[in-house]
Amino acid sequence: MMHLAWLLLASAAPQAAPAPAPATQPAVSRPRPTPLPVVVDARVAQLRDKALKDEVAYSIVEGLTTEIGPRPPGGSAAQARARDWAVAKLKALGFRNVRVEPYQLHNVWERGEERGEVVAPYPQPLRLTALGNSGATPAAGLTGEVAWFATLNDLLLAPDAAVRGKIAFVSNAMQPTQDGSSYGASGSARFVGPNVAAKKGAAAIVIRSIGTDHGRGPHAGGTNFDAGIAPIPAAALSVADAENLERMVKLGRPVSLRLVLTPRFVGDRMSGNVVAEVPGTDKAAGVVLIGGHLDSWELGTGAIDDASGVGITTAAAKLLMDDHRPRRTVRVVWFGDEEIGGFGGEAYARAHAGERHATASESDFGADRVWRFETNFAAPAKAIGDRLAVALAPLGIVRGTGLAGDGTDIAPVIRTGVAGVDLNQSGLRYFDYHHTPEDTLDRVDPEQLRQNVAAWTAMLAVVADAPEPIGPVPVRP
Amino acid sequence: MMHLAWLLLASAAPQAAPAPAPATQPAVSRPRPTPLPVVVDARVAQLRDKALKDEVAYSIVEGLTTEIGPRPPGGSAAQARARDWAVAKLKALGFRNVRVEPYQLHNVWERGEERGEVVAPYPQPLRLTALGNSGATPAAGLTGEVAWFATLNDLLLAPDAAVRGKIAFVSNAMQPTQDGSSYGASGSARFVGPNVAAKKGAAAIVIRSIGTDHGRGPHAGGTNFDAGIAPIPAAALSVADAENLERMVKLGRPVSLRLVLTPRFVGDRMSGNVVAEVPGTDKAAGVVLIGGHLDSWELGTGAIDDASGVGITTAAAKLLMDDHRPRRTVRVVWFGDEEIGGFGGEAYARAHAGERHATASESDFGADRVWRFETNFAAPAKAIGDRLAVALAPLGIVRGTGLAGDGTDIAPVIRTGVAGVDLNQSGLRYFDYHHTPEDTLDRVDPEQLRQNVAAWTAMLAVVADAPEPIGPVPVRP
Repeated sequence: MMHLAWLLLASAAPQAAPAPAPATQPAVSRPRPTPLPVVVDARVAQLRDKALKDEVAYSIVEGLTTEIGPRPPGGSAAQARARDWAVAKLKALGFRNVRVEPYQLHNVWERGEERGEVVAPYPQPLRLTALGNSGATPAAGLTGEVAWFATLNDLLLAPDAAVRGKIAFVSNAMQPTQDGSSYGASGSARFVGPNVAAKKGAAAIVIRSIGTDHGRGPHAGGTNFDAGIAPIPAAALSVADAENLERMVKLGRPVSLRLVLTPRFVGDRMSGNVVAEVPGTDKAAGVVLIGGHLDSWELGTGAIDDASGVGITTAAAKLLMDDHRPRRTVRVVWFGDEEIGGFGGEAYARAHAGERHATASESDFGADRVWRFETNFAAPAKAIGDRLAVALAPLGIVRGTGLAGDGTDIAPVIRTGVAGVDLNQSGLRYFDYHHTPEDTLDRVDPEQLRQNVAAWTAMLAVVADAPEPIGPVPVRP
Repeated sequence: MMHLAWLLLASAAPQAAPAPAPATQPAVSRPRPTPLPVVVDARVAQLRDKALKDEVAYSIVEGLTTEIGPRPPGGSAAQARARDWAVAKLKALGFRNVRVEPYQLHNVWERGEERGEVVAPYPQPLRLTALGNSGATPAAGLTGEVAWFATLNDLLLAPDAAVRGKIAFVSNAMQPTQDGSSYGASGSARFVGPNVAAKKGAAAIVIRSIGTDHGRGPHAGGTNFDAGIAPIPAAALSVADAENLERMVKLGRPVSLRLVLTPRFVGDRMSGNVVAEVPGTDKAAGVVLIGGHLDSWELGTGAIDDASGVGITTAAAKLLMDDHRPRRTVRVVWFGDEEIGGFGGEAYARAHAGERHATASESDFGADRVWRFETNFAAPAKAIGDRLAVALAPLGIVRGTGLAGDGTDIAPVIRTGVAGVDLNQSGLRYFDYHHTPEDTLDRVDPEQLRQNVAAWTAMLAVVADAPEPIGPVPVRP
């Protein structure tokens, strides 16, 4: 994954220009890549290293998880309290233009009761949670026989008759990856499994949680049904419970479950994004958009997902603001209602359509260290990426070769041709806790959180002050 | 903790007798301890090492956790199903005299609904579980202000007026120790905290779970109230929730909780121990009693506490039985209802009063490796301890200097002056999972489980066949 040129850049990073060759150096006998003469203002490194002592990010994560706790998507009262908390915090930190930008949510899905048990032949309780947009069982519950599929592909291959009237059970396991790419592959059991099972006539579906732990905390998360397909009850079993259920199935006798899932659609609700700014000196240069999301699934307290993201990006903007007034306006957004469909991000893009954005970046992958960055600048701005490589390398961050612009909340802005700058966190333990009861403050390593703040601070210092024009880029397919 | 003599024994272990001194050895110039001429039959080592390939222990843990699941104390239906499973399994393994020994439980405590939440000023749910013998709240719940005490000592020091009518909250934290000794110190908040709070007029008490994790799974466990003291509602918060509540309290505003705990006393019930034997050749030599407990707290599936214990001891007895008929009868007991007061152990001692026991040993500290053994043989049998040191050293097991005889279930037998042989497992991660939802099969490391089986097999081979008389010992104070 690493290219030689980037390794050379990284090793040369602490110095502003290549060192002169020592007099005793032998004549070069074979071609070697020439280090780029990249120079980064020394104040970037100073500000970056100051950020390694940051306390703001942790105070935000601690405050949101302690004083608010879970902040359910869907326009919840807790999310409204969190917006009030955010406005007070952002004003106290000295940001300008702090405000809530309200938006309306339609046909909101709300979690209800959720219980499960093995009825026969090995009666015992199961730990599970309803998937977002799940259908409901009768209040007294639904009992059915398990139809087990090791993978989503096995479910797809199954004849309808093998699924009809049964509780489908897809048990594919997820392995950790640093870049989080295993989430996509394993996650399809959750993203599309319920829709597939519904089309085949399943009475309900349970999946093994999309997670890399072996615990009892189920992993929540959204799913979707095609228009015209009636949602069936859909739940994620904890990994330990899924492994136990799989062992039961493999003993060969029919296994029946009882599920009680009573989510409901509660109509329209108001919600909102919280916005704060560090005003720039050059309004025409475009906004540098950064942020994370304020809502969280209700099982945990949303520390890594995503109080950390709003904490990291806010702390970085604060460090820049306290140092100097940047060229470009830095706008920090604490997005609402990401978990159930990215509604805050969509509302932001609607509200700011036509406004010029230079870049968009989102922190929504926990609080472990940033290990890689990626960009997708157009030609006139490419040197900014080179300077980022120099500025970020001392933090142990490599330059990736992918196309930047990841993130649910910034996707609607990115889709208008805005350049992305991605700071990728290590995902090696993220999915141990993601969307589970275990997403709590103690999962955040303060040292790694500060490395994140330093990375974002360096990024802002380079990008917001860049003299180059940062223009539109080709839209990602 | 390690004495030189034992270190020498350990290093000499693989050889049956001291090697002859090489001819070139210099004259001894200073006093050195003489290695004891301890000789252990080579078949002990062969049997011990065969046990390192054991599959029986794991099959028992897997079966109990998969086919039965939680086995609540208090004469539960699940425990009855587990007894049936045990009888079938023990017979299939070839044991003799397999039977259930029934006993009656009086005034059984049964868990009910259990929920908690912070009402103000930071409303959010709390994860908790009722302590065994807890009183009940009204069905609609009990709301009260928190009176926080960092330690049990602070609660003891508090004037009644600081506690009366409030929800006491004791938040002492536990650190892991290899020998598990920190359980005693930290655990007193659970063992006696509710009784102390009740005497001071508290409306209820919540404690930080007695555990070394930082998760959301509360640690269940029993408590006791003095005669004449009305039980108050008493619950353990998960460690993460207790840490969050402590942060809230430290913000300085009054914090109020709502608790819903509806346990009840359901009267008398029948329960039982499962007993199996490897008959010995010399009935007069006394029984070698080993075992673990079959019941488990209901949050997990009781893999480390204590399916492992019954699995380990059963597998070791099976290995001995398949090898030869021992001198002493080995009796394996799967005790019932340990968690709520050791009722199975008491019933066993009553049922077998007057019968001669040579030794009693219990495995009830998880499935991690045995790191130490201890004995308390009377003088005529002391050489057995020396042979155990030789036989166990290759497994990395040291000889401790404490007095053996630990264990709730064997305590009533030990109290009659029977010698104990303790094989102590490492407790460094035991209290991460102990009594929590996380006590499931995947916490059992099959390699360490097999090391346990090997240790118990070697112990049985040495003790059950020992030619020395194993007589009564002074009763532990």
